[in-house]
Amino acid sequence: MEREPEIAKLGHVALTTPDLEKSLWFWRDLIGLQEVERDGDTIFLRAWGEFEHHSLSLRPGDAATVDHVAWRTKRPEDVDAFADRIRSQGTSVQMVAAGEERGQGRAFRFHSVPGQVFEIYYDVEKPKAPLDKRSRLLNNPYRLEGRGVAPRRIDHVNMHAEDGAVAAKWLESTFGFKTREYIVNGEGKVVSSWMSVTPLVHDIAVSDSPTGDAGLFNHLAYWVDNWQDVFRAADLIMEHEIAYFGPGRHGISQACFLYLLDPGSGHRLEIFSGSYLIFDPDWEPIRWTQADLSVGIVWWGPKRSRIAPDHTTPSGKLPEPAGNTM
Amino acid sequence: MEREPEIAKLGHVALTTPDLEKSLWFWRDLIGLQEVERDGDTIFLRAWGEFEHHSLSLRPGDAATVDHVAWRTKRPEDVDAFADRIRSQGTSVQMVAAGEERGQGRAFRFHSVPGQVFEIYYDVEKPKAPLDKRSRLLNNPYRLEGRGVAPRRIDHVNMHAEDGAVAAKWLESTFGFKTREYIVNGEGKVVSSWMSVTPLVHDIAVSDSPTGDAGLFNHLAYWVDNWQDVFRAADLIMEHEIAYFGPGRHGISQACFLYLLDPGSGHRLEIFSGSYLIFDPDWEPIRWTQADLSVGIVWWGPKRSRIAPDHTTPSGKLPEPAGNTM
Amino acid sequence: MEREPEIAKLGHVALTTPDLEKSLWFWRDLIGLQEVERDGDTIFLRAWGEFEHHSLSLRPGDAATVDHVAWRTKRPEDVDAFADRIRSQGTSVQMVAAGEERGQGRAFRFHSVPGQVFEIYYDVEKPKAPLDKRSRLLNNPYRLEGRGVAPRRIDHVNMHAEDGAVAAKWLESTFGFKTREYIVNGEGKVVSSWMSVTPLVHDIAVSDSPTGDAGLFNHLAYWVDNWQDVFRAADLIMEHEIAYFGPGRHGISQACFLYLLDPGSGHRLEIFSGSYLIFDPDWEPIRWTQADLSVGIVWWGPKRSRIAPDHTTPSGKLPEPAGNTM
Amino acid sequence: MEREPEIAKLGHVALTTPDLEKSLWFWRDLIGLQEVERDGDTIFLRAWGEFEHHSLSLRPGDAATVDHVAWRTKRPEDVDAFADRIRSQGTSVQMVAAGEERGQGRAFRFHSVPGQVFEIYYDVEKPKAPLDKRSRLLNNPYRLEGRGVAPRRIDHVNMHAEDGAVAAKWLESTFGFKTREYIVNGEGKVVSSWMSVTPLVHDIAVSDSPTGDAGLFNHLAYWVDNWQDVFRAADLIMEHEIAYFGPGRHGISQACFLYLLDPGSGHRLEIFSGSYLIFDPDWEPIRWTQADLSVGIVWWGPKRSRIAPDHTTPSGKLPEPAGNTM
Repeated sequence: MEREPEIAKLGHVALTTPDLEKSLWFWRDLIGLQEVERDGDTIFLRAWGEFEHHSLSLRPGDAATVDHVAWRTKRPEDVDAFADRIRSQGTSVQMVAAGEERGQGRAFRFHSVPGQVFEIYYDVEKPKAPLDKRSRLLNNPYRLEGRGVAPRRIDHVNMHAEDGAVAAKWLESTFGFKTREYIVNGEGKVVSSWMSVTPLVHDIAVSDSPTGDAGLFNHLAYWVDNWQDVFRAADLIMEHEIAYFGPGRHGISQACFLYLLDPGSGHRLEIFSGSYLIFDPDWEPIRWTQADLSVGIVWWGPKRSRIAPDHTTPSGKLPEPAGNTM
Repeated sequence: MEREPEIAKLGHVALTTPDLEKSLWFWRDLIGLQEVERDGDTIFLRAWGEFEHHSLSLRPGDAATVDHVAWRTKRPEDVDAFADRIRSQGTSVQMVAAGEERGQGRAFRFHSVPGQVFEIYYDVEKPKAPLDKRSRLLNNPYRLEGRGVAPRRIDHVNMHAEDGAVAAKWLESTFGFKTREYIVNGEGKVVSSWMSVTPLVHDIAVSDSPTGDAGLFNHLAYWVDNWQDVFRAADLIMEHEIAYFGPGRHGISQACFLYLLDPGSGHRLEIFSGSYLIFDPDWEPIRWTQADLSVGIVWWGPKRSRIAPDHTTPSGKLPEPAGNTM
Repeated sequence: MEREPEIAKLGHVALTTPDLEKSLWFWRDLIGLQEVERDGDTIFLRAWGEFEHHSLSLRPGDAATVDHVAWRTKRPEDVDAFADRIRSQGTSVQMVAAGEERGQGRAFRFHSVPGQVFEIYYDVEKPKAPLDKRSRLLNNPYRLEGRGVAPRRIDHVNMHAEDGAVAAKWLESTFGFKTREYIVNGEGKVVSSWMSVTPLVHDIAVSDSPTGDAGLFNHLAYWVDNWQDVFRAADLIMEHEIAYFGPGRHGISQACFLYLLDPGSGHRLEIFSGSYLIFDPDWEPIRWTQADLSVGIVWWGPKRSRIAPDHTTPSGKLPEPAGNTM
Repeated sequence: MEREPEIAKLGHVALTTPDLEKSLWFWRDLIGLQEVERDGDTIFLRAWGEFEHHSLSLRPGDAATVDHVAWRTKRPEDVDAFADRIRSQGTSVQMVAAGEERGQGRAFRFHSVPGQVFEIYYDVEKPKAPLDKRSRLLNNPYRLEGRGVAPRRIDHVNMHAEDGAVAAKWLESTFGFKTREYIVNGEGKVVSSWMSVTPLVHDIAVSDSPTGDAGLFNHLAYWVDNWQDVFRAADLIMEHEIAYFGPGRHGISQACFLYLLDPGSGHRLEIFSGSYLIFDPDWEPIRWTQADLSVGIVWWGPKRSRIAPDHTTPSGKLPEPAGNTM
């Protein structure tokens, strides 16, 4: 019998930016990601605690777009199984040959229901850190050096769909994401869902679009180990007039947050800590009504009336179908 | 086709103590666990962030023993599937009727290869916190009040087997625990393994026994959200002359630690934070040789030469087989 | 030759509250101050790290007022020297007999130029903590137990004068407070001053009154040792719907802050950490113009346009002159 | 009438090192001090929060010695007044012309009773940080960037005298240092004293010499704002195999500590946070007997039996008297 294919984790986010130099300064020098490799004008980065080849890529573009959001499967054969499943939904998939994206094996991309281009892969290189940056800890790729904000790893993505409830159902039925917490509006309609395949409260959050357009990207998040690391991040970014929101603590997910805008692109980054883990197999999703949102959206910190912020970046589009698309 | 049964998580640890009053003071008043319920002279406790009925129980006994270590399965039917598997190994199991242990459904117990009595269950009550202790956060059972050390949840157990390598293999083949990190001795034999079914580096660690006896309990751990919470714990316990080791940071698992002895029983508690999560399906277990242990055992903090401490508490014994044992 | 009299430190703040029970709950149970003693319906409290008899007193009153703000002198004879100085300014002083205020020796009170009633004292009792609350640390009065917000000591007061610049000059010429940082408005007039006799950036801050009335009390502050203690405080108070502002970090004074309102009285408390110490005898006061205030008032955290908040509590009035006033 | 001369603060420590390159790497790159200026082969450094020209200088030497420990006076005229006082004790002083030490005005040096060469100065330059390193905070010289351990400022020095009690009395009678805490041995003799002219628990600590030799330097300390910054420091230094002791918390002074050895010289640095401030003019020095030292020396953390460590660096010697010595 065939097992159901499964998603293991969020892998990486590929961004385009109209100002590559400034974006590189932001992600590498201020945030403190490690530059792993370049391929033409694409730059691959990862955090000091990450083993995979990259969790972020930056590529110059006319506009700031999210080229794709990549998910790793649990088993090699899940890539094809998911491709079949997507095709069976009437959606075309575009195959990505091994090595076409640096460090990554055979994969495929497609326009997801939330609106972003998703990439599904399994094979990935896990390059060691260069000797002069390698940690003495065998379980850590890079030396602990506290350079910049210095997050440990990518954590989650947050995006807007034409209809957040429809997108959440699609994420569940297609990829097995479970809803951990959600918000209903005054009419009882689900407008935001925090979903995961891991014990994290969310690997992905999906909400109704503020404009009605799908594919609006709200933010990607990197993890720091302590609340105080979030507040230290605030100190560092304030020296550079980076647009920010926070720091504070969400009620939903119980996460300490600080939102920043990449000054080169406007893509939003969340520096994220705290939160909690869900190991229960029978987790009852937490339902937040409008009455609860005064503590749900911001437990403490600067107030705002809704999760959806006032600034998003759009999804990129896949190239027109070509020979390698089936 | 039948799915393989799976373990979802560590559920609880049941301790006996020769000084119930002092142990209750330690776990409830100094550590800050919540007392949920009493059943005869057994007291059930849980941490402020836990939904299940209990993560710890205390019962008076002539000696300090670990009555059982309980693991929750992923599905209801996994309980019976695991019981069958244990019986097929030639080990007798003792069924626990629903409600026999407060808050818990039908379960079974048996003498595990590491030496502790394991309990396997699925059904469990998730009682709400009393109104006067309930959090305004819908995703949190108890009010945040910072009483005592105030850990969020149980994290892992650490124990000694007659042969740590044999026990680790048994944990893997029987319950699907994956080795995340391990130590080999000078002859290349595995002496300690950190293993998990979750993305935690370990739900359980198992090591060679310092005495050759199986079933020696090293510690159970509760999680706090920040490094600083570990150091705050050190302040609180020092006012009471609690035996302790730490604080410090392990290289293995990268965890901030503080070890305490329950003054009523000598059972050891680890206050634990930091560490990292493993989402990779193809995680390559980290191998620590003797040469690496100078950073592996204690990255920083007080030094010791090996993981195995100088004080353990024994496993309890199951009652003699009776009618309900098959 | 006579030495100039000198102020050593802020001693305590005496508050009246229309809801003593609720205020006591706030300061003792939620904030975690220690109740030292009662005298009639006046309750004396101090923080766990304080040796003096009290740093706060609560007394029932028809309205929330600040009965007095007390400053300790460096030498016993400074009390009379300061009384003479105040009288020489044409201001009447009211003597307070030893013991009239619990724990305190002979003192005097008067209406200060900032508008609050100031009390000047030297002699004060330093009672030990009760045995069951005493710390094992010889340099700490109370056991470290992390009860409530658990600040270590009183830090400073912040108030409004009819003219902040006039009040600052008076504080300097009368009591030797040095200006450490200050704000000028668009016309170059000093509107807010942070002043100290200690190396703290401020023992007292005084600003123009938002209403033109003198004697409006903005807040008193208690110190916690770490930034994270400020954020922990936010968790605790959110469970009780306390009105708050923050947390965040001021540019001026570089302090991590969380402002809370005592729900029984509306008096404002700042939980305060970070900041810096000034040991330089030739400190050049930091001048903040309106152009700098975007980082000066809030370095990071929720934004507001000026230091003066939207809620203050008035100063109490001294009783009419009687026999003991000269 | 003449006022007594007064010491305002610890100013800087001048070190010689047999391996300037390695020491510079340690203090500038790993600890994160800012290099201010070079004068020949002397390098001047300060922390990001310091306004004075330098708090540390490094100079190559055949051996690791403490060239001098510099104290700033409260008033310009105090320099000469203290010089007279030292001469009146029969000790020769060596004048240092303005500019002879970069950034510093006229000063004098002499062999102190504790054994180190002390320097007394008032005039000092307060250079701005270079534009590309300047903070947006007007009250902060350097940009907050979290580079290396990143302490805020120098805190204190700790040294050994032939007789710690005699040295402490001399520090009090000559310079006005007040004893804040002290240890007596079994015979009641004072063996260690923590002393300050500021509200810090100590600007200087002086103990009996483990060898009987005076002038053994134990450590200088730099301050970080939070406990967690101490533990972050431990992470950073562990990647480089720096000899260390800690982290932990002293009972005496209540300070979180981490001791490091400069690998180029063996001079010891303490990374220091926590502790408390003393504003009371009638502070009763805390007396620690041998019975109390189990909590006094190390409140929590790695244990040691006495404050005096097993490694010290000697004091330098003043050049032979020349024309500028009176």
